[in-house]
Amino acid sequence: MPDTMKPFLEPRSVTIIGVSRLIGPSAYNILENMINAGFSGRVYPVNPNADEILGIKTYPSVLDIAEDIDLAVITIPRSEVPRIVRECTQRGIRAITIVTQGFADGDDEGREMQAEIVRIARQGGARILGPNTWGTANAFNNFSSGFTPMNMKRVPVGFIAQTGFYFGLPTVAGKGIDLGNACDIDFTDGLEYFEDDPDIRLIFLHMEGIRDGRRFMKVAARVARKKPILALKTGREEEAARAAQSHTGTLVGKDEVYDAAFRQCGVIRVAELDEFEDLAKAFLNLPLMRGRGVAVITPTGGAGIMAIDLLRKHHLRLARLSPATLDRINALGPAWQRMDNPADVWPAGMIAGHPFDEVFATVVDSFLQDEDVHAVMLLFGSFFDTATAEQTARVLEIVERGGEKPIVYWPSGPEAEQLRAALEKTGKIAAFPTMERALRALSHLNARWRYLSTNEEGI
Amino acid sequence: MPDTMKPFLEPRSVTIIGVSRLIGPSAYNILENMINAGFSGRVYPVNPNADEILGIKTYPSVLDIAEDIDLAVITIPRSEVPRIVRECTQRGIRAITIVTQGFADGDDEGREMQAEIVRIARQGGARILGPNTWGTANAFNNFSSGFTPMNMKRVPVGFIAQTGFYFGLPTVAGKGIDLGNACDIDFTDGLEYFEDDPDIRLIFLHMEGIRDGRRFMKVAARVARKKPILALKTGREEEAARAAQSHTGTLVGKDEVYDAAFRQCGVIRVAELDEFEDLAKAFLNLPLMRGRGVAVITPTGGAGIMAIDLLRKHHLRLARLSPATLDRINALGPAWQRMDNPADVWPAGMIAGHPFDEVFATVVDSFLQDEDVHAVMLLFGSFFDTATAEQTARVLEIVERGGEKPIVYWPSGPEAEQLRAALEKTGKIAAFPTMERALRALSHLNARWRYLSTNEEGI
Repeated sequence: MPDTMKPFLEPRSVTIIGVSRLIGPSAYNILENMINAGFSGRVYPVNPNADEILGIKTYPSVLDIAEDIDLAVITIPRSEVPRIVRECTQRGIRAITIVTQGFADGDDEGREMQAEIVRIARQGGARILGPNTWGTANAFNNFSSGFTPMNMKRVPVGFIAQTGFYFGLPTVAGKGIDLGNACDIDFTDGLEYFEDDPDIRLIFLHMEGIRDGRRFMKVAARVARKKPILALKTGREEEAARAAQSHTGTLVGKDEVYDAAFRQCGVIRVAELDEFEDLAKAFLNLPLMRGRGVAVITPTGGAGIMAIDLLRKHHLRLARLSPATLDRINALGPAWQRMDNPADVWPAGMIAGHPFDEVFATVVDSFLQDEDVHAVMLLFGSFFDTATAEQTARVLEIVERGGEKPIVYWPSGPEAEQLRAALEKTGKIAAFPTMERALRALSHLNARWRYLSTNEEGI
Repeated sequence: MPDTMKPFLEPRSVTIIGVSRLIGPSAYNILENMINAGFSGRVYPVNPNADEILGIKTYPSVLDIAEDIDLAVITIPRSEVPRIVRECTQRGIRAITIVTQGFADGDDEGREMQAEIVRIARQGGARILGPNTWGTANAFNNFSSGFTPMNMKRVPVGFIAQTGFYFGLPTVAGKGIDLGNACDIDFTDGLEYFEDDPDIRLIFLHMEGIRDGRRFMKVAARVARKKPILALKTGREEEAARAAQSHTGTLVGKDEVYDAAFRQCGVIRVAELDEFEDLAKAFLNLPLMRGRGVAVITPTGGAGIMAIDLLRKHHLRLARLSPATLDRINALGPAWQRMDNPADVWPAGMIAGHPFDEVFATVVDSFLQDEDVHAVMLLFGSFFDTATAEQTARVLEIVERGGEKPIVYWPSGPEAEQLRAALEKTGKIAAFPTMERALRALSHLNARWRYLSTNEEGI
């Protein structure tokens, strides 16, 4: 693995060029935010008009810093940037983040300046992240070059994006790279960094466009076998493509080409942020789904029917319950009822008089033991709102010894947050805010199983 | 308007036949729940083995009650139901809710018994709701015939459903009718009741199937001109149709037929409960959208591009900003930036140094005054997390005097709940959890405007 990205995400020493003496919410002071994030490496601020800022000694120029520097973060007006990049290369700095906006994302003059910066960096042996970037952040070592506070948690997700927007969303990722205009460092560099990173189990790409598609596909195809890669590719429509041109100076290709390319190298395309969140939750918490059969347990027949409507849409099917399963679950219901899949368990409780914890535990256990059931969907209505800890424990025990079948849970109605947390803690079950989102997640757990076991691509 | 449904939703006196002496969460005691709901009418419980239950005098039989009875609620084993229905008609009761399960939703014997009940009721001049139903609930008079607590609030939404499931969801509706097996009372009766109900501004249907399509369409076409009707039609797939047959004994027709019928009579079809919630929020809180042009304001270019991707999918388009609007908003940005739609306002704040409240207020105001802008979408990132009350007030003032254009708001990132509430209180703005859901809501506000103003049907 090339260590291109290492100084950007794990710098031991950083210079920030263009640190203001202003602090507070409207100052966008990178030094202030870096200190507040708890970064423990050395920091050398550059400001020719100050001796110290926030108690830290400042330097008139990067050339005045005697110590080794892993990373330079540049945040000065654009006209100064080429000169400062040259000074950085003179100082032997190999990693440079350019925060400044107004290059390929601005006007013609900006585009020319960006090209000049790339030439200077190439000559000097430095790599550039940006310009027009928030830089990088790493919750695992409390490093961040952002100009606003970043709330990232140590989530095992690495993101590589063309906007710093995701830094503000604490649940998205534990390590992030904002490519900005991507004049040099690109998606593939980020993929190579996360490929064998033990902190990272899933990779999220936010992509407006890409330059070197061939290299990306080669690396992505390799990395996708190790960790799921989810991609939110924007700029589908012509108008969006034009906007991307002015956002990061990116040329956006035909959307269908991206679709095919992602599919070919095993990258999972998502449509919006909520889909990313759902799939990340599923991949990080649930076992893969080794077939398309889903068994549904519901205390309301109406909801079971809605679930069936959504199965085919998501390339799943109702599991065909074995005679043994059917006998076991039907022993619970009244004589006039023939329970099947979905299993409507309301009459078993209200009419046949079985306690609902017994009903849920028995039905879920029967499902998990059935060969044609590859995943279980729980549509919980009122039962768990009134369940005691003991009743809940019985269901949890079944879920926990359930083996390698994912269980998704739609907690409709007033939700028992405590129960949801307990269920999710088993590592066998995940809750989703709608039935459709739960089934979409299962569908991807099945697609990934097929991808890893049979080389089949996509859903 | 026929007053078929009045005794079911506004009874002055109710008999409950088959009240158990058991109370508490597992007893499903309708009397207990009716009292707890705060119903102020007279209640006559029938139980031949008790003198009083919960301090209320009980009767051996409905024939022993001397007073007028508006509504009978029957919850006894199925074999007794025909006899009791006959007794109710003998007592002159015209409205009967049958809670008991195991009729057309059960086996052949149950189907025959259901047909017999209908015959008895017709002869006796009574109308039947159910069987297999939770009955009705009305938050506006604290009435409920449900066997579990119903948490309904006085929301101006009436639902008519084939499951009582929605009673448990307090935000769905303020008045509800569970048709259950719909052996007699059907969707059309419910529509006629809500048509001129001043408490109800929107109607929600959960439908598995319908018997008298012609009558439904005639009434729905009339009611839809007065109030939006949203329909969640389930049982699309063959397997789902089979399950509906065993859930409520409903014969489900071809899905495409329903699609066409809904479209023709102005009923808006929704795919899942979250879509209903979004559209209800939009219809109840926002003005209609009088064209397809949307203007987007965003502090992150990347999110603006995502919005464009979703516009066409939802049959909307980017508004073409007038030269006056462009001049006004571009006065805020740095010289190298040419803001358009979406307006990326980050450089105006961070580089040009304008306070973000001024930027937001100016851009939103310019949008609202632009003729081609029919709705505004606000993608708020970090600004509002740090905004002071005074800064927020400035934006709110613009929103409030904004006139008759809907504004949707996607509060990405750590959300300021207080601000969201303040924004929504203006009655001009509604927040949605994803950009796609915000645009889907706008799309329906536009479709309804076209439906009411030009007779154009559907999106």
